[in-house]
Amino acid sequence: MNAPDPNFAARIRESFGRQKAMTLIGATLTSVEAGEVEIALPYRDELTQQKGFVHGGILGMIADSACGYAAFSLMPAGGSLVTVEYKMNILAPARTSLRAIGKVIRAGRTLTVARGEVYAQDGTHVATMQQTLMALPDRPDRPE
Amino acid sequence: MNAPDPNFAARIRESFGRQKAMTLIGATLTSVEAGEVEIALPYRDELTQQKGFVHGGILGMIADSACGYAAFSLMPAGGSLVTVEYKMNILAPARTSLRAIGKVIRAGRTLTVARGEVYAQDGTHVATMQQTLMALPDRPDRPE
Amino acid sequence: MNAPDPNFAARIRESFGRQKAMTLIGATLTSVEAGEVEIALPYRDELTQQKGFVHGGILGMIADSACGYAAFSLMPAGGSLVTVEYKMNILAPARTSLRAIGKVIRAGRTLTVARGEVYAQDGTHVATMQQTLMALPDRPDRPE
Amino acid sequence: MNAPDPNFAARIRESFGRQKAMTLIGATLTSVEAGEVEIALPYRDELTQQKGFVHGGILGMIADSACGYAAFSLMPAGGSLVTVEYKMNILAPARTSLRAIGKVIRAGRTLTVARGEVYAQDGTHVATMQQTLMALPDRPDRPE
Repeated sequence: MNAPDPNFAARIRESFGRQKAMTLIGATLTSVEAGEVEIALPYRDELTQQKGFVHGGILGMIADSACGYAAFSLMPAGGSLVTVEYKMNILAPARTSLRAIGKVIRAGRTLTVARGEVYAQDGTHVATMQQTLMALPDRPDRPE
Repeated sequence: MNAPDPNFAARIRESFGRQKAMTLIGATLTSVEAGEVEIALPYRDELTQQKGFVHGGILGMIADSACGYAAFSLMPAGGSLVTVEYKMNILAPARTSLRAIGKVIRAGRTLTVARGEVYAQDGTHVATMQQTLMALPDRPDRPE
Repeated sequence: MNAPDPNFAARIRESFGRQKAMTLIGATLTSVEAGEVEIALPYRDELTQQKGFVHGGILGMIADSACGYAAFSLMPAGGSLVTVEYKMNILAPARTSLRAIGKVIRAGRTLTVARGEVYAQDGTHVATMQQTLMALPDRPDRPE
Repeated sequence: MNAPDPNFAARIRESFGRQKAMTLIGATLTSVEAGEVEIALPYRDELTQQKGFVHGGILGMIADSACGYAAFSLMPAGGSLVTVEYKMNILAPARTSLRAIGKVIRAGRTLTVARGEVYAQDGTHVATMQQTLMALPDRPDRPE
């Protein structure tokens, strides 16, 4: 495996900027470290389900992107990643701004396992995700 | 357990209409049967990730809502449901309109297990979800 | 990708015979088709948890092996597979002989997704599993 | 919710002693704290799959029991628990004695979410599990 890219943070910020789905929901990238990425999501009515809580799928979106970029931070430049699968438990309903923190549990040559935690503004643990990603070392991180 | 609500379809259409997150992404309810619900999602650039495919979290959103309403269709009127957890495998990238079909695998008094399948317009199997939901028989399906 | 092995059934029976953990619990291979494998587990007291039901991890063992060999049946000869992850819902407690059926949902070059269902003797649906496996085309299916 | 049982450790040791499946594989309870339980599994050939590694389902068994008893440690006396579902990633193959540590992530009145980690003797992180359990406050933790 080639060395991780020292410019991973710039690469991730640029890639995140192309995630139109993150723009749609209003999520922003708030921290990028090697193996750990944080995303913030301000509360908006548009993000809710029928009971007025943030939709469980929206929780999944920010945890998915946080985990994916945590994995991406440890990869050599030039490649890309796909999400293989994720599993998320919703621990508490949320009607507040949120942050999702993705951390790499194990980075392999082909597969990376990451964990995502979603917290409410008051610190409530809202959701926890376990995710598997696959490296595509020869495929660029942009539309082909 | 009380009998399922014969008016479940109207109840679900009304509840779905209050899922602002579904409006945000442009999803619509296309079929409501007892134990099986279908949601359609027309393709839009705003739903994509950095490689131009529909974001994995968006796939999760429509599968989550389809499974949830499939479970809801078998519940007595007056109560509500929460998603306990879900696990989704992404089987193929998608750059097309999608439909998600949620089906109940087992409906228990407290817990229901459902499965969601997401398909592309050409029939490609895009994602498969396994989900657990919990009934809240005494809590209304609206903001409290 | 090379063609699947026409002798997959013999290869799987031989490999299953080397799964000492299956011998320990008394599981046998009852059906091997391309993309679908069935394992039978006669009831024994030794398989139970504290309430007298078959241990949830035992349900996982037979579903895991059934899914793994279903995936293996579609692979070229000479390689091997590893389980990446699995997720299982337990739908009903079981105090009876069981059978686990694994089926391939999607067979990719590197990753395969399979589903496992566990049934009791009276047909009760006991558990449902969603699993991801990774092909190791250059690694033999035996101790190295 | 009633108070947790101060005698939880004795209650868990007694319950674990009735898990015949743990006896079958040779697992023992090595630590019981409130919300955290550890199980040890000495290596034996009988636990392996076809490549000579401990079977993935065996990893699941010890993680499942460790998580379940971690959840049980926080429950009032007199009730019992069932595993609703679990999801496990296998991070590394293991041909060694193992220990599984289960910890409660969130203990609710009805549902508890726990995490299980499996480690090899040399400290290698072998597997990670996310699990959901349901309390049955009126059902005893023994055969009925």
